[in-house]
Amino acid sequence: MGIMEIGKVPVTRLAEKCGTPLLIYDEEKIENKIKSYMRNFSSPLFQTEVVYASKAFGCPAMIEKVKDAGASLDVVSGGELYIAKVSGMNMEKVYFHGNNKTSEEINTALEFGCGNIVADNPEEFRTIIETAACTKRKINLMLRINPKVAAHTHEYTVTAAEDSKFGVSIDHKEKIAVLIKTAADKKVTFKGFHSHIGSQIFEASAFIKAAGLMIGLCSYMEKEHDIPCPWLSLGGGFGIKYTAEDDPPETETLCRELIRGGEEAIRSAGVKTEKIMIEPGRSIAGDAGCTVYKVGYEKIAGDKRYLFVDGGMGDNIRPALYGAEYSCDLAEHMGDTKDKEYVIGGKYCESGDIIIRKAMLPEAKKGDLLIVYSTGAYAYSMSSCYNGTGRPAVVFVKDGRARLVMRREKKEDLMYLAKDQEVKI
Amino acid sequence: MGIMEIGKVPVTRLAEKCGTPLLIYDEEKIENKIKSYMRNFSSPLFQTEVVYASKAFGCPAMIEKVKDAGASLDVVSGGELYIAKVSGMNMEKVYFHGNNKTSEEINTALEFGCGNIVADNPEEFRTIIETAACTKRKINLMLRINPKVAAHTHEYTVTAAEDSKFGVSIDHKEKIAVLIKTAADKKVTFKGFHSHIGSQIFEASAFIKAAGLMIGLCSYMEKEHDIPCPWLSLGGGFGIKYTAEDDPPETETLCRELIRGGEEAIRSAGVKTEKIMIEPGRSIAGDAGCTVYKVGYEKIAGDKRYLFVDGGMGDNIRPALYGAEYSCDLAEHMGDTKDKEYVIGGKYCESGDIIIRKAMLPEAKKGDLLIVYSTGAYAYSMSSCYNGTGRPAVVFVKDGRARLVMRREKKEDLMYLAKDQEVKI
Repeated sequence: MGIMEIGKVPVTRLAEKCGTPLLIYDEEKIENKIKSYMRNFSSPLFQTEVVYASKAFGCPAMIEKVKDAGASLDVVSGGELYIAKVSGMNMEKVYFHGNNKTSEEINTALEFGCGNIVADNPEEFRTIIETAACTKRKINLMLRINPKVAAHTHEYTVTAAEDSKFGVSIDHKEKIAVLIKTAADKKVTFKGFHSHIGSQIFEASAFIKAAGLMIGLCSYMEKEHDIPCPWLSLGGGFGIKYTAEDDPPETETLCRELIRGGEEAIRSAGVKTEKIMIEPGRSIAGDAGCTVYKVGYEKIAGDKRYLFVDGGMGDNIRPALYGAEYSCDLAEHMGDTKDKEYVIGGKYCESGDIIIRKAMLPEAKKGDLLIVYSTGAYAYSMSSCYNGTGRPAVVFVKDGRARLVMRREKKEDLMYLAKDQEVKI
Repeated sequence: MGIMEIGKVPVTRLAEKCGTPLLIYDEEKIENKIKSYMRNFSSPLFQTEVVYASKAFGCPAMIEKVKDAGASLDVVSGGELYIAKVSGMNMEKVYFHGNNKTSEEINTALEFGCGNIVADNPEEFRTIIETAACTKRKINLMLRINPKVAAHTHEYTVTAAEDSKFGVSIDHKEKIAVLIKTAADKKVTFKGFHSHIGSQIFEASAFIKAAGLMIGLCSYMEKEHDIPCPWLSLGGGFGIKYTAEDDPPETETLCRELIRGGEEAIRSAGVKTEKIMIEPGRSIAGDAGCTVYKVGYEKIAGDKRYLFVDGGMGDNIRPALYGAEYSCDLAEHMGDTKDKEYVIGGKYCESGDIIIRKAMLPEAKKGDLLIVYSTGAYAYSMSSCYNGTGRPAVVFVKDGRARLVMRREKKEDLMYLAKDQEVKI
């Protein structure tokens, strides 16, 4: 029987000090992952930039890690712009994404000195140009393209739907050229294109396919319309290991293949690409984080043995939302034979609040700590106060030291937005 | 061209004063719905109780409506117990549900003077008895049963799965009797059974079927084991109209059928039922609320015409989570011909963030107000700060007056749980 440690601190001690459910991040894993991207995603042929997608997990402590590593940041709202700014991020290294940026948000971006905006659609592109024209701020502008390559996990489709929510179809080359020309001689500088082909992708080939198509678009713009496209962003979506069935490539391998694919496409198209960016989010924060729950009641129902824990869809909606799968252990019984089959049920009043449908564990009892792995991305960031249950605490752990980076939301906190205030009509 | 009014206030005015996205509740609709339940769910044969399920929408302003109407309240966590208490609810009229109540939550219930706890499973049942034994507080205890009737919308299955997350299977009569006997001579008083058969149900027959089975269980307990079961809760799950395809029964009709079904089952079983409860949540708050968004960019992609709005899965995750459908209008173009087909897309960076897949509307333009109906239940209560976008404001409107009951969560608020504090290990 062994006790799970994270950053040289026993999980039992963290749970005792900070309560459960608790999100624990291994700082070193975050640091190593960013470093690995920074080191391996590089080429003698063009500059590279690693842009962390803060929507995966974007608290100040996380953004500091990004900043310290010299990486850049991808934000998707005025709120994320704000968190980036107060976290001390160099705003010139921030990329503002999203499909429906409000005028207020665009103004916030300009005011905060955000360096780069990625427009999703022609109307937004024009609005950004107009809004920037009213200010003295310069900003780099990119346009999101739908390269019609869609990927999910280890499969991809070359001719993906043209009717996606995001981006402008790569088929509309002429229209894109006309649109970009409206940016000439304005406060904005058109820098190039962005694509994002999906989530939790294991195959570099899907990105390379998209890169080839995107570089083809750049070549067309340069040669047919004399429009420089110095930057190209290949987006994110790099997969991580949630369960034993998942077999994502190592960061080094993935980066090497992406770089080689990019170099070949650039050489063959003869384009003047100056910089290629990638936007990892999940693959940096995902497996650096885990959630520790306390086991409550057990119930046998039909042929199922439920083990209920003190959290669920409020702190991690991914199983209910996407049917996402996770693996787990009893933190105080590491290495014990896992010969009991449980359904890990959350405490929320919904049938769909099942964290893991089939979990093999040693015999569990009330009070045991259950650790669910790889919850570092899209769990905390999508968390809610559903069922009147506040959001969990988050700790960063390293070298035997732990620090609370997001405090637990207590029942008293649930009233913090409540008002009773006449609206003057 | 007409402007939508709610509680005699133009929606345009509310949006101007409170911003968008905005959740607007018609107070009178809430009041009328609760009153209709209170009036129609009554019988000369037994007492009745209408218990509002606060998880549907549980802010203080809503709980005051419940309190003022003399109804009772169903809560599912320590947080909801807290909100009930600070909202001035008579705690004796509160029912504490849930499948995994922590010891801390059970203690909170006892400390707050919560009148009633509904245990989900044998282990929890015993824990509640033990916890209550350590205090001087008396409490009524009920047990959740899985009657093996499951319903969803207008269909139901008589032999539903026995392996449900919630309740004890109705087949285990002997075990249930043995369990209840452990409560004798303790601080808790066993009062009877609870069942809940599903969500968004249109047919009274499913509830009547469950009621018959539950009354059969009560009869067995009374006659074979001399265990009184004076109370019976039939739970909630009464459906509402989201789209033109939904055709839920009127509250009056539903209550009449439920009462008649209950009376017949009680007479035929010869049981001594003193009180029957129902727990409407969605059917009280659901269609009293609507969400107003501001239209942003439009984009044509393939054969789809997207209309992006300034909210989405953060303020209403039901479309992404359950494939829930809604209907909508342009608030300033009521009555205009709806001959344009749009996809209503949210502003969140996920392909799944589509609010309405097929919306027929008049021609829309940037700045228009889009009103999505029947968002009063399970939208705000499940809302998150995903993508760094704070939760919307909530207003209650009546007779030409509006009051802000939950203020908008601003970007500065996103930092309110952030810390950087050493944890002493």
